Amino acid sequence: MIVRDARALIASEIRDLLKVADRPEITSFAGGVPDPSLFPLGDFRAVYSDLMADEAAGRRSLQYSISEGLPALRQWIVDDLASSGAVRSVDNILITCGAQQGLDMLARLLLEPGREIVVEKPSYLGAMQAFSMRRPTYVGVNMDEDGPVVAELEAAFKGGARVAYLAPDFQNPTGRSYSLERRLAVLEIARQHGAVILEDAAYSRLIYDGDALPSLLALDETHGDQNAGTVIQLGTFSKTLVPALRIGWLCAPRPVIERLVLMKQAGDLHVSTINQEVALRAARKLFPAHLGILRDAYRTKRDTMLAALDEFMPDSVTYTRPEGGMFIWLTLPENIDSRQLLEQALVDAQVAFVPGQAFFCDQSGRNTARLSFATEKLDRIRAGIERLALLIRRVHNQ
Amino acid sequence: MIVRDARALIASEIRDLLKVADRPEITSFAGGVPDPSLFPLGDFRAVYSDLMADEAAGRRSLQYSISEGLPALRQWIVDDLASSGAVRSVDNILITCGAQQGLDMLARLLLEPGREIVVEKPSYLGAMQAFSMRRPTYVGVNMDEDGPVVAELEAAFKGGARVAYLAPDFQNPTGRSYSLERRLAVLEIARQHGAVILEDAAYSRLIYDGDALPSLLALDETHGDQNAGTVIQLGTFSKTLVPALRIGWLCAPRPVIERLVLMKQAGDLHVSTINQEVALRAARKLFPAHLGILRDAYRTKRDTMLAALDEFMPDSVTYTRPEGGMFIWLTLPENIDSRQLLEQALVDAQVAFVPGQAFFCDQSGRNTARLSFATEKLDRIRAGIERLALLIRRVHNQ
Repeated sequence: MIVRDARALIASEIRDLLKVADRPEITSFAGGVPDPSLFPLGDFRAVYSDLMADEAAGRRSLQYSISEGLPALRQWIVDDLASSGAVRSVDNILITCGAQQGLDMLARLLLEPGREIVVEKPSYLGAMQAFSMRRPTYVGVNMDEDGPVVAELEAAFKGGARVAYLAPDFQNPTGRSYSLERRLAVLEIARQHGAVILEDAAYSRLIYDGDALPSLLALDETHGDQNAGTVIQLGTFSKTLVPALRIGWLCAPRPVIERLVLMKQAGDLHVSTINQEVALRAARKLFPAHLGILRDAYRTKRDTMLAALDEFMPDSVTYTRPEGGMFIWLTLPENIDSRQLLEQALVDAQVAFVPGQAFFCDQSGRNTARLSFATEKLDRIRAGIERLALLIRRVHNQ
Repeated sequence: MIVRDARALIASEIRDLLKVADRPEITSFAGGVPDPSLFPLGDFRAVYSDLMADEAAGRRSLQYSISEGLPALRQWIVDDLASSGAVRSVDNILITCGAQQGLDMLARLLLEPGREIVVEKPSYLGAMQAFSMRRPTYVGVNMDEDGPVVAELEAAFKGGARVAYLAPDFQNPTGRSYSLERRLAVLEIARQHGAVILEDAAYSRLIYDGDALPSLLALDETHGDQNAGTVIQLGTFSKTLVPALRIGWLCAPRPVIERLVLMKQAGDLHVSTINQEVALRAARKLFPAHLGILRDAYRTKRDTMLAALDEFMPDSVTYTRPEGGMFIWLTLPENIDSRQLLEQALVDAQVAFVPGQAFFCDQSGRNTARLSFATEKLDRIRAGIERLALLIRRVHNQ
């Protein structure tokens, strides 16, 4: 299924939802926003205090810096990638204003009006917002339990697409992950067709069960050639430290980085110097212990939401059981339109969620919904799901 | 004179220069970079400390925020604009990652391949880098002592241009300002042709002599209609507080802001929350006293450089006498190519500057150069100018 531009729909919807989610009486499962009570505020207080007490480092961190990003931060990212099996160089890393800016810059580099881009059905709304600025042609690929349907991905590449945006770990919006076999198959098909994979790794460190599977980047062996590679990976500190620093990065073959550095320089010079320095110091201090704290807290929230769904939802509602990330994906009975349900839920159940249609490039999925378990407290998660389930039972029987 | 794309030239040149300027043995008049010894480090230490000690404000400043920018910061900007005679509303303000991002976003909104944009000759390099991403057609307008030559500006608009990028106060690279009469004339011509003026106000607060003239924005009376206006103004804290926060803004008619907010959301979501909060607290605390400190320090530097130029330069070299900003503009004898001079100056005189050609959309100005007096200490400014003058005398007589 091919759709030319989902931008207008998307933009108004997410903005209206963000407004709704702010109202205190609403239990919000809408935002993909970390729980601020989990921010390591005391550690950030100490990092800022130490930095500002150091005359030389303090002044340096308030000055302009280079467009590529601080070398020491890029080295930290390279070391972190290496620890999960992806061997790359500092010259393969560009620091961006969150992973979102990486998506926008890659869209500017790789897309143009009418050019195909492959996306999952459903896919991440914010990525499609960035892509849609370039008015590409979306080629949606359906998902099964193991990842994108191989025959559909192959057909997309055979049809001329040369860029695919994929999120193999705890995807926003569904929470689904790819199997190892499917990761290998996807990479092999992309290689055969000379396509580029944009791998969104925003949630990959938020894993709650079992061991992490290797990323597409780690599976994409470049044999030490910093110009080689099929995969461009996008990462961020927004989910593992704090979002407000706006520190993301992308890891790409050197020729791509060189073009993006010029774009970054012309676009906004560089990411905030002090924020890069603070993120580096916080990451050195807090990883991996803080990841353990986040995993324990979010695992409990996920379990609470799944238990409430199991207890209260009718059998006609199905949902994913994600092993990480922030989201559970609901599939409602065919006769329920989740946008209409949202309007009722806000009034009758004081619950917010994101209607699933916004995540489909072809605007299908009218009976789906995204629930985030990240932000609300445990008792509100349980009570909110109970109220939502009651509403769904009532609507379904009308 | 019309040139299609100055991008390749510009990008490599500024990057090589930034590398040169970092070497400690070089006296650098190259970078348009504030003197870090003037950063109010102690005040920033206190601002960060107070913010992080406030549990609620601290956590809020580490979370995601809205794409428009923090309302309180936008209100501060509106109040500051009002104090200099430009009456606008919070809804006319968008916070950007430095003024550079404002330029990039306006280029994405207003330009497309081949569309004309009027620029001063010379003009700000970073602006042309942002514009060149869209491959516009540059229409260069010559400058006299009062500003852009009116007949040339009129001819540009009659020729179809509908966007002009102008810097009326202490322009980068020349340090020149427009007279009041020329400001009024420029605005009137733009209005007559339905053109938009992008007013770069980055240096307008760094005034060292006399009283400030009203900005084009202040002269562009909108009679309280937030949808009206001919002028879009770009501002920044990079020169008045610190660059590293990457906090700029643009002030534009509401319909423009609405489109740019969607672009901002798709592009990088929003400017760093904590940096906006810190900039607001620092501005409240430090303005206008800190501006006085900056003015005194930079005035002395400017006077030192002008005195050294007066003392050492041969009569064949002419230069501007700016009343603000960071730059003095040299015009060398016709037979001197300032790029070649730079190569010699780095080796023989240990002095760096920016060859002027980079600032001309038509790559004229081969015998011009930009000197920044902002960064170096007074004794190094005097000694560096003396060595540069000696080199110029030697080269000129060859």
